[in-house]
Formats: sequence, C-alpha cells, structure tokens
Amino acid sequence: MRLEDLPTPCLVLDRIVLERNLEAMRVIARRHGVLLRPHLKTAKSADIARLALGGEAGPITVSTLAEAEYFARHGFRDITVAAGITPQKLGRAAALVETGVMLNVITDDVAVAKCIGSHITELRALIEIDSGEHRAGVGVDSEVLLEIGKALGSRLAGVLTHGGHSYSCRTADCAADVAEEETTAVTVAADRLRSAGMSCETVSIGSTPSVTHARRLEGVTEVRPGVYMFGDLFQAEVSCTRDDIALTVLASVIGRREGENRILVDAGSLALSKDRSTESTEHDAGYGLVWDIGAKPVYGELRIERAYQEHGVAAGDGSTPLPFDQLGVGTKVRIAPNQACLTAAAYDCYYVVDGGDEVVAVWDRINGW
Amino acid sequence: MRLEDLPTPCLVLDRIVLERNLEAMRVIARRHGVLLRPHLKTAKSADIARLALGGEAGPITVSTLAEAEYFARHGFRDITVAAGITPQKLGRAAALVETGVMLNVITDDVAVAKCIGSHITELRALIEIDSGEHRAGVGVDSEVLLEIGKALGSRLAGVLTHGGHSYSCRTADCAADVAEEETTAVTVAADRLRSAGMSCETVSIGSTPSVTHARRLEGVTEVRPGVYMFGDLFQAEVSCTRDDIALTVLASVIGRREGENRILVDAGSLALSKDRSTESTEHDAGYGLVWDIGAKPVYGELRIERAYQEHGVAAGDGSTPLPFDQLGVGTKVRIAPNQACLTAAAYDCYYVVDGGDEVVAVWDRINGW
Repeated sequence: MRLEDLPTPCLVLDRIVLERNLEAMRVIARRHGVLLRPHLKTAKSADIARLALGGEAGPITVSTLAEAEYFARHGFRDITVAAGITPQKLGRAAALVETGVMLNVITDDVAVAKCIGSHITELRALIEIDSGEHRAGVGVDSEVLLEIGKALGSRLAGVLTHGGHSYSCRTADCAADVAEEETTAVTVAADRLRSAGMSCETVSIGSTPSVTHARRLEGVTEVRPGVYMFGDLFQAEVSCTRDDIALTVLASVIGRREGENRILVDAGSLALSKDRSTESTEHDAGYGLVWDIGAKPVYGELRIERAYQEHGVAAGDGSTPLPFDQLGVGTKVRIAPNQACLTAAAYDCYYVVDGGDEVVAVWDRINGW
Repeated sequence: MRLEDLPTPCLVLDRIVLERNLEAMRVIARRHGVLLRPHLKTAKSADIARLALGGEAGPITVSTLAEAEYFARHGFRDITVAAGITPQKLGRAAALVETGVMLNVITDDVAVAKCIGSHITELRALIEIDSGEHRAGVGVDSEVLLEIGKALGSRLAGVLTHGGHSYSCRTADCAADVAEEETTAVTVAADRLRSAGMSCETVSIGSTPSVTHARRLEGVTEVRPGVYMFGDLFQAEVSCTRDDIALTVLASVIGRREGENRILVDAGSLALSKDRSTESTEHDAGYGLVWDIGAKPVYGELRIERAYQEHGVAAGDGSTPLPFDQLGVGTKVRIAPNQACLTAAAYDCYYVVDGGDEVVAVWDRINGW
C-alpha cells in the first residue's frame, strides 16, 4: 500500500522522524538521571508507547481512564492518570488496580484525597502542585498540601506538576526557566511533606518544552513530556524544528482557483482541528501548512487560511504562483498540523511510513473517554 | 440510567428540544414548498436522521463518504455527498450506487466531471455553484458551468450551493439576503444549463441561518440545513435562541479555586473542540457555557475561558460568587457548545434525555472518513 492509495483525510506518521524524536528525549532523561514516563495523550497508541520506551511496556502517563484501560489491555502495568480524578471515577481506577496495574491518580482536593485514602482498594495518588501554570494544583506553601497528604495517608505516592506555561515561551532559556519553576515547586512540596513525616517517592514534572530545555533537574525523579514524539508547527517554535514533525494529515485537492492562487483540500476543521496555536508565534501557520505528498515544503508557505468542517482553503504566500499543473483535483498533499494532539484525535489509526511513500504499518489509537 | 451515573465527558441530547427544532424546520420547508434534505454532518446518526424526516429513511445530505456508507447501511437510499468529489473517490461512490443507493456527488471541476461522465457506473452529479461564500463552486456566469454540464452529460442531476457566508450574519434580514443570493445563483445557473439544452432537476441551497430566515425560495427544489437540529451558542446569535440548544456536554468538576471564582472541569479542547465562533458575536462564550446538570444557566455566564486537552477552566462573570458548596469535585455540569458539529465529532454516541435526568436512549454516531 502506498500513500497515493489511501483514503483521505488520514494520518501519516513518519517512523524515521518519530524514532529520532523518541531517542532524543531518552538521551535527555538519561542525562538528567530521571525516569522517562512519556505522556501518551498525544500518541494514544500502544505501538508508539513501546517504541518510546525502547521496546518495553514501561511506565507511562495518560490523560484519561479510557487510555489507562487501553494501555492496561496492551500490557502496560505502571500508569499515571495525569488529570484530576473525581470520587465517581475511582471505581474505574480501582478496577484497573485489581487487575494488577500500578495506577497513580492525581488530586489537589482534600475531599477527594479522603475518598482515595479510605477506598477499599489500595489506590496510589500524587498530589498535584501548581508551578505557575495556574490551571490546577495546590500552592507549594499552602496548608492544603499537608492536609491532602494526611488524607491520603499510606496511599500518598508523591507530587506532580505540569509546567504548561512553557507553551508561552519562545526561547530555550524561557523554557529552561519553566523547568526550574517546576523543579522548585515539586521539590519544595516534597520536602514539606517529608518534613511532616510523610513519604514522597515520586517527584514528577513535565511538558515537552521545559523538559527539552531543562538545565538541571535535581530532586526530580521523573519527567512526562508527550508531544515531543510527533512535534508540530507550534512545537517548532519552542522545542523542535519543522524537520522534526513526524505527523501529517494526508489530504486531497478537491478544488482549485488559479486566479486567487489557492486550492481547496478535503481536510478542514475536523481533520485538522481548529487549533490556532501558531497564531501567537512569529510564524502563523493558519490551520496547518500544505506540503507535497513526500512532506516537502515545495509550495512555499501554503497555509490553510480557512477551515470549514470538511473543507480547508489553502492560499499561497503570494511570492510565487502555485504550480496548478501539479495540483489537479485528486492530488494528494501532506498537511503539517499546528497541534499534533488535537489533530490526531480525529483519527483511529496511523498509516506509518519510513520516510518514503510505502505504508509499512498501520497502528491503532484509543480515543474518547 | 441517570445523567448522574454517566462517565464524563459525554454527549447529552435533549430529545424534546431536538424534536421541536426538527418540526420547526419541516414547517419552514413546507411553507416554501421545497424538499427538506437535511444535512447529517452535524448529527451523523441514523436515529436522528429518521426523526428529522418524520420517521422515514428519506433524502439526506452528508459530508463524507463514510457517512454515506453508514446511512446506506441504515436503509437510506437517496444521499447527496455535499463536498467536492475527487476521481479517486468515485470508486467508493460507485460501490454505493451498485447497491441501489441513489447517490449524488458534487463537483466544480471540468476534469472531474469528465471522469464522472465516463465512469462505468451510472453516477449522478450536481454542479456546485458559488453564491458568495467563495469557498467552492463555479461562478454563475462562468463558461466553466456549461463545460461541466456537457462533461457530465446524462449524469447531470442539477445544481447546488451552500451560502455559508450566512454565518457572518447577525440579523434575520442579513440571513434572508443570503438565502436570496443562494436562490438567485442556483436558479440562474439552472436556467443557463437548461437554455443550453441540459436538464437540471435539482436546484439545491442550504445553510441553517439562510433557510431559517428565507423570505421566498422560488425556483429552489430542496434545502439542506444541518445544525438547526441541535443549535449551539453560535446559532443562538443567528438562527435560534439558547433555549433551542439540544446538545450539551456532560462534564465533571475536577478542581475549584474559590479565591479566583473559578472551577476546573474534565471537558477541554477534545471534549468541546477549539471552536471560538462566538468570539465574533455580541456574546463571546469562550469555549462553551457551563449550566447545571439540568441544563439550567444557574451559574450566571460561567464560561470556559481556557481549554487544554482534557481540562477546561471556567470563570464566573464576576457579578456573583459561584456557589462552591454546590460545586464540589465530582459535581456534574452541562456545557453548551459554541459549534455543535465540531463538539459532537469527538464522541461515538448520544445519551438521550426527554428534558429530565433519565437516559431514555443511546444513539450511535458515525465519525471519521
């Protein structure tokens, strides 16, 4: 099977670029002497999780219980669900623990911690710390931190933070500063818990930009980057280059307007998502950049300017006319996404290539909740 | 099963509101004496399609071949695929025709029309006309219109336009003007084709705002609205009211910050989509409005201000403090979406209620391509 034969739109994953990205992050984790617990919220694939861990079903992070259940079915036994749990969801979490999975849930809430602490199943929980993103997590200096620790009792497994504010960085130095904020937050929190007589084994941070650029991670035990696997146009402004983008959407030209130097493709807001992350960067890519079927940027900065449900309007940058003789209706193109996690979520599988146009594997994905 | 028992996030569909919306559109179509060929790109559900057609598997519009195949499996026999077809996709279209489906494809391209005209299977095609949206379609006065008609030959079934520029309207009058532009475009195009000796049976227009507010539709044979079934916060600014919103996302509170008058919910950019349609209206709803489990707006204008992959940050409007004693972690809320089509696409089923909190049915959905 070749790319030319695939139905469009669909997801194409370049394994050569993927493996290079995976190895680069393993090198970073080794250099810092920390455990790599990759976040699978982007890839949502057991095949990719194994590749990320050098072939084994090692420790992973997920964003939903549906992902946790999927990876457990695929043999993964050490899973952190990195979004605040609710009392109502503890039943599903406990069911996984009962099958032998070492599952960590997270919370920043005293009432939830009490439910976890008194649950009939031996759950494990990390306390979420706010290191500056101000999304979730308790303050490092708050009294609530110790209250939650006490409520968890023997189920307290450690502390965790996500320095998502690294996404507002545009330089390596800025992202490294966020890594320091994350590190300080979790190590101070861990010290406070330990000083109060509690154990705090896991000290976890993570976001792709902050981990990629971290200077030192003293006191941290593990990192949880995720989107580094695929890269995307937004990450190319923060943590990688456009050459590191492993994931593209294969699409077909479905219309052409030579007079306006634009084409219409069958990838719109469902196929690409309505993410506009690059709007805030120096290189606004609209809803994605159109490359040729070999993922080469041969059309200049051909951006998806408008995204309708199943239509994308791609307009040339004006510097050169598009080669309309090579862009007949039906021509296949590859579209680099703004945000890989959101784009991938519309699909149930990856068509895998090794740099060329032959499909060498098809890998499934888990979506939903 | 009650809403309280459902895993979150999930889709809740209020059948009472749905049926009211469906009946209102049937009344509009009857008043104009046109066929209602509802667009199923929003609902993507055979159950809902039947309800929309008064219980029968009548004529429908879809946006993808996957939808066409799904509805064909569910007994629908008259289907228009309203996104430009490519030569490579004609095989799948033909396979449906071979099973007895009357399938209309659409095109605005001479080369594609030749492929359709000479295809071994008796395909039927509509010529797409640009009525002012400037997305796809040939100009009413263009020579290409007649060229395409000739290339299609006996497979020419009619003309079609989508007045998507009605989405930039904020008044009924504006949307009615778009309906006139649509009507003029397709009737003039049909007349030109007929004057050239071609038959042009179907004269099709459609978008929810333009059909809802149309003054007259003389010469039009069918309308193709879609999102009217569910409504959403954007449509509430153009074609309906907030009371007409049938679709919400059931979510759970996963965090609270009393000092900042905000809560965190487990519905983020995957559960809601990153659509920001209401940004351009008088009532910017962020990524959605948070109502209580009964879909009542009891929290003031509580908007999802920030949407992360699995986290939504909802901030009160500042006029009153949120009732945190009723918003503990685990509390269920209903979130009204900006754009129902995109939000629904993240889910594989609807939990149906009849105004109350009891789940009276579960209806599947078709996603993907």
